[in-house]
Amino acid sequence: MADASAPTRRARGGGGAARRAARSAVSFETARFIERNIPNYEVLTEEALEVIEHNAETILEEIGVNFPDNPAALKRWADAGADIDGERVRIPRGLARQLCATAPSSYTQHARNPDRNVVVGGKNLVLAPVYGPPFVRDAAGGRRYATMEDFRNFVKLGYMSKWLHHSGGTVCEPTDVAVNKRHLDMLHAHMTLSDKPYMGSVTEPSRARDSVEMSEILFGKEFVAENTVMTSLININSPMTFDDVMMGALEVYAEAGQACIISPFIVGGAMAPVSVAGTLTQVLAEVLAGIAYSQLCKAGAPVIMGAFVTSIDMNSGAPTFGTPEAAHITYGAGQLARRLGLPFRSAGSFCGSKLPDAQAAYETANSLNMGLLAGVNFMLHACGWLEGGLVSSYEKFVMDADQLGTLHHLAAGVQIDENAQAMDAIREVGPGGHYLGCAHTQANFKEAFWKSDILDYKPFETWADEGARDTQALATERVAKMLSDYQQPTIDPATREALDAFVAQKKAAEPDSFM
Amino acid sequence: MADASAPTRRARGGGGAARRAARSAVSFETARFIERNIPNYEVLTEEALEVIEHNAETILEEIGVNFPDNPAALKRWADAGADIDGERVRIPRGLARQLCATAPSSYTQHARNPDRNVVVGGKNLVLAPVYGPPFVRDAAGGRRYATMEDFRNFVKLGYMSKWLHHSGGTVCEPTDVAVNKRHLDMLHAHMTLSDKPYMGSVTEPSRARDSVEMSEILFGKEFVAENTVMTSLININSPMTFDDVMMGALEVYAEAGQACIISPFIVGGAMAPVSVAGTLTQVLAEVLAGIAYSQLCKAGAPVIMGAFVTSIDMNSGAPTFGTPEAAHITYGAGQLARRLGLPFRSAGSFCGSKLPDAQAAYETANSLNMGLLAGVNFMLHACGWLEGGLVSSYEKFVMDADQLGTLHHLAAGVQIDENAQAMDAIREVGPGGHYLGCAHTQANFKEAFWKSDILDYKPFETWADEGARDTQALATERVAKMLSDYQQPTIDPATREALDAFVAQKKAAEPDSFM
Repeated sequence: MADASAPTRRARGGGGAARRAARSAVSFETARFIERNIPNYEVLTEEALEVIEHNAETILEEIGVNFPDNPAALKRWADAGADIDGERVRIPRGLARQLCATAPSSYTQHARNPDRNVVVGGKNLVLAPVYGPPFVRDAAGGRRYATMEDFRNFVKLGYMSKWLHHSGGTVCEPTDVAVNKRHLDMLHAHMTLSDKPYMGSVTEPSRARDSVEMSEILFGKEFVAENTVMTSLININSPMTFDDVMMGALEVYAEAGQACIISPFIVGGAMAPVSVAGTLTQVLAEVLAGIAYSQLCKAGAPVIMGAFVTSIDMNSGAPTFGTPEAAHITYGAGQLARRLGLPFRSAGSFCGSKLPDAQAAYETANSLNMGLLAGVNFMLHACGWLEGGLVSSYEKFVMDADQLGTLHHLAAGVQIDENAQAMDAIREVGPGGHYLGCAHTQANFKEAFWKSDILDYKPFETWADEGARDTQALATERVAKMLSDYQQPTIDPATREALDAFVAQKKAAEPDSFM
Repeated sequence: MADASAPTRRARGGGGAARRAARSAVSFETARFIERNIPNYEVLTEEALEVIEHNAETILEEIGVNFPDNPAALKRWADAGADIDGERVRIPRGLARQLCATAPSSYTQHARNPDRNVVVGGKNLVLAPVYGPPFVRDAAGGRRYATMEDFRNFVKLGYMSKWLHHSGGTVCEPTDVAVNKRHLDMLHAHMTLSDKPYMGSVTEPSRARDSVEMSEILFGKEFVAENTVMTSLININSPMTFDDVMMGALEVYAEAGQACIISPFIVGGAMAPVSVAGTLTQVLAEVLAGIAYSQLCKAGAPVIMGAFVTSIDMNSGAPTFGTPEAAHITYGAGQLARRLGLPFRSAGSFCGSKLPDAQAAYETANSLNMGLLAGVNFMLHACGWLEGGLVSSYEKFVMDADQLGTLHHLAAGVQIDENAQAMDAIREVGPGGHYLGCAHTQANFKEAFWKSDILDYKPFETWADEGARDTQALATERVAKMLSDYQQPTIDPATREALDAFVAQKKAAEPDSFM
């Protein structure tokens, strides 16, 4: 892990030509991915885990899973010893788990800036931003369809967010670019506006291939052949259906040695049973089938066990977030993933609120905390999610990204060395004294406590004089400042030109489609 | 625990006199106190715990604690074998822990409605509202000094809050009543406007005696002699100073068999070392001395190990809330309390924000979740806290009280019986189906998921049509509805008259003091 080094900051340079060069070399501080020094939290007993594992195998054996419109997949399954009945695949007890065994327990995803490489698995937690919303919102402009300009802004914010390790994928859906071409612009933005690791396109196998080709331009063909440079999101159509488009993208990535999150997408009570144990059983069955399939495509392909799982409001049919049942499922899924020996993806800045208000923050904090303690290794949607995932929120992006600092500090655990014991300080101060000026406080205060970069800690009178702003208003100001301070990371001009040319050539090769 | 029964609801009655009688007998649903069916979360290793325990004894032995202006306390300590030097008490290694052994590991606090009794200790969690703010805030009136009318409103809201088990104490400081008389009005409000358990006054030993006497009127003298009917808050002046007024109140309560929380009040970096381990060491030393002293006053007196601990913003000097360091301390203090065999008080709806906005909710959710997982048995400030405890917020009170429902559902743990396994549902629905209409969903959906009574789950268009309200606006509406729906629980008229008379007589007996 020598390539995933401690936080770095390269300062701005001097004047004239030197300044121009230094400006292009500017880099913003990014924390290293989290390595937990705290235990995982587990809610399922050994007995419950065994029941769920047994039942998941029963689902695969008796009910089976569907691979519609995908004869190649059915053939792979038949060759592996599964029973094929139309599009239904029934998997003998134990076979899927056995196939999963070739998937690595952790992998390194390389970034073009090696300081930003992430190691996914083990005790680690990698944080990536919101993925997928067709809308954006900010305080000034309200809710509106996302554009490519919004997309670039969110990539910039992600690049500048200290506690965010990953640039993500579809940080919002750029609806002003043709559906069949927007993946090119999105990848180009991640590759040129940030130097953090990123995700590839999954909406067509051909777009996955474009993602691999663009990565080959960025990293070099040989490097990509030998290393993982993308982690992409393959959703399962719960219950138990594996969409041929998603499976096609998975095949492309697995064969190229690129990582995929294989993730049931479940609103409990709609796409899975209304109970926690039932949902976990279905999640496990789906993940076993999906990860087994990835290994049939290429044994050893890096994959993450995903679990996007939330509950439903049975009155309105709306998904609900940050709920206790979602927490139970997340904790339980983490236990199941560790027993499978696979990296685990779950949790995020989930909320149902329409605004970055108290509801959004309660729901998000519930989910972020649970995600850390559940042993999540890759947290997609770690900042910026609003309105059940329909909206990428500018303000909430920076609010959540700030809160991600608390996860880093929590994960560091408790120091117990002599300095931390602070007995000299307690002796120095004594009963009735105070610690503000004592030697131990002076030596340690800078590193001792996590400090928000956005929340308000001012005295009431100061805060009132400054306009009595709420968190959203403070965040609006921070978004503007970050976008104004943004500076592009350096990139080799030839690489940049090659990326530009690839995108231009691909765009010219076929007409726009908005379907 | 037969007296702490399941939630009850008594419906409104018919017309005329019957209706008037039934109206006076109305009762709002209150959940039973939480009994955790989930594990505690622990961050300290055995080795770290032993270091902290050893160092705490070193503090007591070498540095000692101060009991200023309290010759009776010094005599008690001398008789017990401590070394007295002026107001400094040095306690031989092991003596304080030995004295703590007579404190019960759990106790029942009785309410005048036995359905509302709470059992404090073990796996239980009892939730009580905010305590102490001199200001109140609501959206319409802004921030202002609290009055007795505010106080009564908060008691009413607490009484009607389903997830709140306890009426609390100084839900706000009624600044329009004389300092030497307001405890009478506050107790009268808790006793007559609610039937949940409550806290007594600690601001003078004489006021603690008034609290016992008013409780004797409410419960009967014999009952109070034999049962705990109050849990009161005794703060330690950290570092290591035991205020004679607080100790006087503790003596009154301990001798009357009434419970006290004995609680360091620490902003880390100011009243304790800037490190987690150092703060935990001082907290343990202070609690050992305080609880030992309670047992010197009366062996067997029920007490709670308290830990009000937060961090500081070293730039502004402001206390900060919901921080990772506060979580570490809370988890660690829970471990120390369990090793002492004592009930544990910590966490709450802590926040530094001036408004019930996203900052308030992030900070509060962080603290509430940590409190549940840390094994807290008595959570004071569980709802309504704003601006570092300077303000009781109407809106935040009902917002937080709603979130307390998530703690109940989280604590229930995961069911794994046949119904929860839901295999029949998975078979019924099969790949590609949906669960909304299946038999298992229909049979289970009502109880399956926690549901907020205040947060917004509506479609965007409906929400926009209804005024695009944020959480605070929804809470404003809920506060108004609750106060309008409030109905006083029945009380024996003779008891009520006796309470009125006691308050009137006490108020007439001395002049108002606002000091």
